[in-house]
Amino acid sequence: MPAARLVLDAAYAVAPVPRRLFGSFVEHLGRCVYTGIYEPDHPSADTDGLRTDVLELTRELGPTVVRYPGGNFVSNYRWEDGIGPRDQRPTRLDLAWHSIETNQFGLHDFLSWTKKIGTEPMMAVNLGTRGLQEACDLIEYANHPGGTAWSDRRIANGAADPFGVKLWCLGNEMDGPWQVGHKTATEYGRLANETGKAMRLVDGDIELVACGSSNSSMPTFGAWESEVLEHCYDTVDYISLHAYYEEQGDDALSFLASAVNMDRFIESVVATADAVRARLGRKKRINLSFDEWNVWYQQRFSGDGPQPAGIPWEKHPRLIEDDYTVTDAVVVGTLLNSLLRHGDRVTVACQAQLVNVIGLLRSEPGGEAWKQTIAYPFEQVRRLARGQILQVVGASDLFDSAAYTDVPLVDATATYDTESGRAALFVANRSLTETARLEVDLRGIGGTSVLAATTLHAGAGQDRHATNAVQHDAVVPVRFDDHTVRDGRLTARLPALSWTVLELHTSR
Amino acid sequence: MPAARLVLDAAYAVAPVPRRLFGSFVEHLGRCVYTGIYEPDHPSADTDGLRTDVLELTRELGPTVVRYPGGNFVSNYRWEDGIGPRDQRPTRLDLAWHSIETNQFGLHDFLSWTKKIGTEPMMAVNLGTRGLQEACDLIEYANHPGGTAWSDRRIANGAADPFGVKLWCLGNEMDGPWQVGHKTATEYGRLANETGKAMRLVDGDIELVACGSSNSSMPTFGAWESEVLEHCYDTVDYISLHAYYEEQGDDALSFLASAVNMDRFIESVVATADAVRARLGRKKRINLSFDEWNVWYQQRFSGDGPQPAGIPWEKHPRLIEDDYTVTDAVVVGTLLNSLLRHGDRVTVACQAQLVNVIGLLRSEPGGEAWKQTIAYPFEQVRRLARGQILQVVGASDLFDSAAYTDVPLVDATATYDTESGRAALFVANRSLTETARLEVDLRGIGGTSVLAATTLHAGAGQDRHATNAVQHDAVVPVRFDDHTVRDGRLTARLPALSWTVLELHTSR
Amino acid sequence: MPAARLVLDAAYAVAPVPRRLFGSFVEHLGRCVYTGIYEPDHPSADTDGLRTDVLELTRELGPTVVRYPGGNFVSNYRWEDGIGPRDQRPTRLDLAWHSIETNQFGLHDFLSWTKKIGTEPMMAVNLGTRGLQEACDLIEYANHPGGTAWSDRRIANGAADPFGVKLWCLGNEMDGPWQVGHKTATEYGRLANETGKAMRLVDGDIELVACGSSNSSMPTFGAWESEVLEHCYDTVDYISLHAYYEEQGDDALSFLASAVNMDRFIESVVATADAVRARLGRKKRINLSFDEWNVWYQQRFSGDGPQPAGIPWEKHPRLIEDDYTVTDAVVVGTLLNSLLRHGDRVTVACQAQLVNVIGLLRSEPGGEAWKQTIAYPFEQVRRLARGQILQVVGASDLFDSAAYTDVPLVDATATYDTESGRAALFVANRSLTETARLEVDLRGIGGTSVLAATTLHAGAGQDRHATNAVQHDAVVPVRFDDHTVRDGRLTARLPALSWTVLELHTSR
Repeated sequence: MPAARLVLDAAYAVAPVPRRLFGSFVEHLGRCVYTGIYEPDHPSADTDGLRTDVLELTRELGPTVVRYPGGNFVSNYRWEDGIGPRDQRPTRLDLAWHSIETNQFGLHDFLSWTKKIGTEPMMAVNLGTRGLQEACDLIEYANHPGGTAWSDRRIANGAADPFGVKLWCLGNEMDGPWQVGHKTATEYGRLANETGKAMRLVDGDIELVACGSSNSSMPTFGAWESEVLEHCYDTVDYISLHAYYEEQGDDALSFLASAVNMDRFIESVVATADAVRARLGRKKRINLSFDEWNVWYQQRFSGDGPQPAGIPWEKHPRLIEDDYTVTDAVVVGTLLNSLLRHGDRVTVACQAQLVNVIGLLRSEPGGEAWKQTIAYPFEQVRRLARGQILQVVGASDLFDSAAYTDVPLVDATATYDTESGRAALFVANRSLTETARLEVDLRGIGGTSVLAATTLHAGAGQDRHATNAVQHDAVVPVRFDDHTVRDGRLTARLPALSWTVLELHTSR
Repeated sequence: MPAARLVLDAAYAVAPVPRRLFGSFVEHLGRCVYTGIYEPDHPSADTDGLRTDVLELTRELGPTVVRYPGGNFVSNYRWEDGIGPRDQRPTRLDLAWHSIETNQFGLHDFLSWTKKIGTEPMMAVNLGTRGLQEACDLIEYANHPGGTAWSDRRIANGAADPFGVKLWCLGNEMDGPWQVGHKTATEYGRLANETGKAMRLVDGDIELVACGSSNSSMPTFGAWESEVLEHCYDTVDYISLHAYYEEQGDDALSFLASAVNMDRFIESVVATADAVRARLGRKKRINLSFDEWNVWYQQRFSGDGPQPAGIPWEKHPRLIEDDYTVTDAVVVGTLLNSLLRHGDRVTVACQAQLVNVIGLLRSEPGGEAWKQTIAYPFEQVRRLARGQILQVVGASDLFDSAAYTDVPLVDATATYDTESGRAALFVANRSLTETARLEVDLRGIGGTSVLAATTLHAGAGQDRHATNAVQHDAVVPVRFDDHTVRDGRLTARLPALSWTVLELHTSR
Repeated sequence: MPAARLVLDAAYAVAPVPRRLFGSFVEHLGRCVYTGIYEPDHPSADTDGLRTDVLELTRELGPTVVRYPGGNFVSNYRWEDGIGPRDQRPTRLDLAWHSIETNQFGLHDFLSWTKKIGTEPMMAVNLGTRGLQEACDLIEYANHPGGTAWSDRRIANGAADPFGVKLWCLGNEMDGPWQVGHKTATEYGRLANETGKAMRLVDGDIELVACGSSNSSMPTFGAWESEVLEHCYDTVDYISLHAYYEEQGDDALSFLASAVNMDRFIESVVATADAVRARLGRKKRINLSFDEWNVWYQQRFSGDGPQPAGIPWEKHPRLIEDDYTVTDAVVVGTLLNSLLRHGDRVTVACQAQLVNVIGLLRSEPGGEAWKQTIAYPFEQVRRLARGQILQVVGASDLFDSAAYTDVPLVDATATYDTESGRAALFVANRSLTETARLEVDLRGIGGTSVLAATTLHAGAGQDRHATNAVQHDAVVPVRFDDHTVRDGRLTARLPALSWTVLELHTSR
């Protein structure tokens, strides 16, 4: 039986768990907004047109921050189209997703929604078709208390108090040739720097995210981050990372090893940012905003580049509505582990996206809403990762896949909260077929007992491709009992292809 | 007697005659639009304010495509100034031509006119003072069926159906320091690429023309095309060429050899585009849009650069209203030959301009309209060049001028239409004084007879500087009989300084 | 007793005194506009809301040109906010000075004010957040006679005649990272060139100033001027210089030597501009516009960069209201001398600023207005420098300070007006403690007598830090009698730390 022997020690903390690590993303794309979070005709809709069924599920997920309104969408978005009386808002072509945008949902609507959810908004400004002036106008509209033309217009539109949005993205994926108003690193670095400086003059309290590479396979990866940061190092707080993973062909093992790629990606961007820091002789560090990540079966969708003539323009078409499997949930667990492991530098992260579009949740127009398989690890880690992230040392048995070598079969992270004495252990068994033995030396935590444990796995008679598409509770975490604690040592037998969460209580 | 011995063979076809090779150009410049095609107070004006006398002459010319609204004009034009009720359109300074622009003629007006003529519109977007957003707004206004703010505005302005404009120029002569908002090759290449990509997202069906050099004597010629195409190769379909020719001093022979320069210019741009293709490893070829060409006596006009203080601003002043001579008509014939010879790559061409401004036609405010000498070769080649362009081989006697060596005294092109069995032969005799003997071996066409033939020349007792300015039919093609066909061999005696067109019928 | 022996000769003229050398500056900054020149509620206000007490003092100062509306302010200014009915003008955030801008004072208001003062306006266009189009719109609005949308709007707003503003700055301090929409030299050089060319197409009669370095200590100084001028040499008439001086710690001697720095700065920019001229092979020379200069105690103010969160946004807050001393007045005298000495190339200069903000004048809201110490040398030189600037040769005793070596103890300039036979001599004694003996050989001017003479100095029992803050006439020039003319030789005894002005009459 394959095995992993790990050590936890409360003295070896990486960093506090970043509050904003468990974010999600709402883009005007497909049915994320329309018939996702917003559907005034839905039986469950509240007076704001929000679906209360989706609201309720979102509150359970509890994303700590939600990015909006894009994504590629933002690069051809005129934010003021989405304010004021709904019947006077213009209908536009959204060039990013070849869709008709009615603007029935906009800035006020989103920020009301974040309040109902109890989450923090993270907004993006359009640096594709627009620039400095419109970004400043937006932040003045959103955040200035009142007494100016823009802020008084916000008040007239019903929001007496400033929204106080703190976290702002300077555009989206500006390195990607598919982006409307794509920029070179020089163009973007300069624009981001001047726009960011001016935005800070409007509101000195904001935090700014510069666009990093759209993914680590971009031909400009590394060079892009380096040049962009040289232009705007003093102006920004974060550099962004985006990554999507999928199973290529039947290569499940490489897919299960995706977090190895994410680890490397993060560490490469940290190195790049710190190299610029050294070169410029700065004290400040740039942190990482991993503001798009997920499993996404991109081969099923080709949305980039010009649409072939004749594809009709529709309002909120069904786009990239992936049905997630047990396997995907285990991978998402390991991606959360990767983010958590790097919580000293990755201090913002947004799973993409909340509803329908590669969504944690799914909702049918006029119909039901439910959680996909990947919602469970997200919700668990968001709820249980508390206090300090612990450095997990020790060794797991390794395997090789077509794309990676020396992949730990068991992938684990842990957190420990001194105040409550609670610890949490998040463990994936990447073996498709074998149960794995887990031994954890708790020497640095002290007398410990297991409070609760669950596992999410295919289970007997089930397929690793099982989803919640038809039976919405087909794949959920189940109680996990195959563990003992003796002499300060936890032993457990992790089912094949499983995501297991253990809550520990220490007597210290 | 100087002579030329040519061979025609239907098997040696260059390419089909490009439909768009016989275009013209309507710019808001001088009296091309106002008192040219549009003059509501004219006795002949229809209910749209169009001069029906000019309409009728234009239909006879039959330009297959018409470029609009500029030219230098477009680089400071706000297209939406020209839509909506006429009494609400703003009056502007046109900085390109130091004129007052009333905007009484605009997008809808032009496109109605093209329908009445039965021609295809070729529009240009302003990349001088504007950029991506306004270009997308325009194409959405013009081409999107409806249901968006911009397209609904077009419908409200009376055009229920989309205009479906296919052919779009990405700015005009952006390499020229005189251009409002002149760009470097880097600046323009980037802007053209991003604008073009976004325009295609609005309408996936369009074709795009990137600006090449304003003429082949620009100091950046070649380097400009190369860098611009490196930036936007995948986005555009055409690169543009502009050329104007005139008689310098009394050097008539060099002027008559202008097509040698045009041939070289075209071949240089083909080479440049194909070199970029090789460098980028692309399969697609970039074609050539020779979208401004003509005889133009530029020494009579100095419109570039800042106007001396005190020159008054006028509405549609008389600007560059060249009176064309017999000599000019022969040169225009050879320029048409040059374009036709390169019809495999030059697949769009626009004579500049249609009326008054270096015009095929002239019209007087409140008065008459007539064809200039150069209108005749244009109309003939447009009407008779059908089917395939034939490769004309053989040899003409040569001459040297001050500017060129080894210039063929007789310049000829031919087309052949398999379906109808018709061929056409377009021949210039560049000698100022001597009749030239033409022998054409028709071996590859078969039993042939001459259906009709005309020649345009100074004629007995006439001056090579004769124009149609006073007597509007002073210079017209006349019946040409000095030809025989025997044993598959055509023999003709071409008058000195003449443009001769022969229509052949083959029995094959 | 330290001494200076000088020679004046009317034959050795540098240049005519440039009319525009005695300019000032009104920026929307602090209380320069609001409660400075404009305060409708003030007891002295006229029907335009202008303070007549400040108007009267300004007329006495007689600035020959006044720059407006910024300064840093202009780089986020939308000029059309300041036109039309006052109650419809939008209130804006001014990002440059963290202030609320009500726009109650704007273009028309400023230009009415210049008429009342009898001075020439010098306007700046916004090249921070805006570009070519808005600059052209402004100049069309301001200077085009009528008959276009923009010029007719000016007429509707009450100005039937065009304003005819001749002198235009292409942005402000675009090299400074603090500037909203800061540009690199390449970015700015290109923008300035294209904007300037287009502005000239709107009005061929204007003169244009390109931004030089914000000060001679900028890391890009020299390189900036060089690259910018390479881009826009043919388009502009002037390159700008800005300099502010202050006493660092107690180093009064270095402060008193500030004009040495100004001399060097001017000569460096002349050399740089002329080197570009040589490189480009141009005949035209670029002149210098020293359009911000003064004493400014910048260590008392830190306005650059983002404001710390929480600093309130106020309307016309009290900002940089320096109280000027006797010492400052002597330094300002020497700075005027430096400008005058270089009047062959420095042909525009603007003291910064007119009222309250590092002001010649001060005014209290609802209260009094008065002249600061530095107003006196400004007013004297403006009034008395007439005719030709003379080359002053000879030698002064020298001193070394912490920052400079070989500084002339006595700093002098002179002008001579052939027509009236009047000469003027402007002399500073930089010694803090010693009277200086001045001998001037008037051989080249002829039989001369002293018409009038004044000196401004601390005086007996007074402190060199004395100001006019409390007693508004505490520091004024007083009659100066300690001089004789004998045998064509003027002898005078200049008080320690003094600014002395002698008006001479010649019998020639």
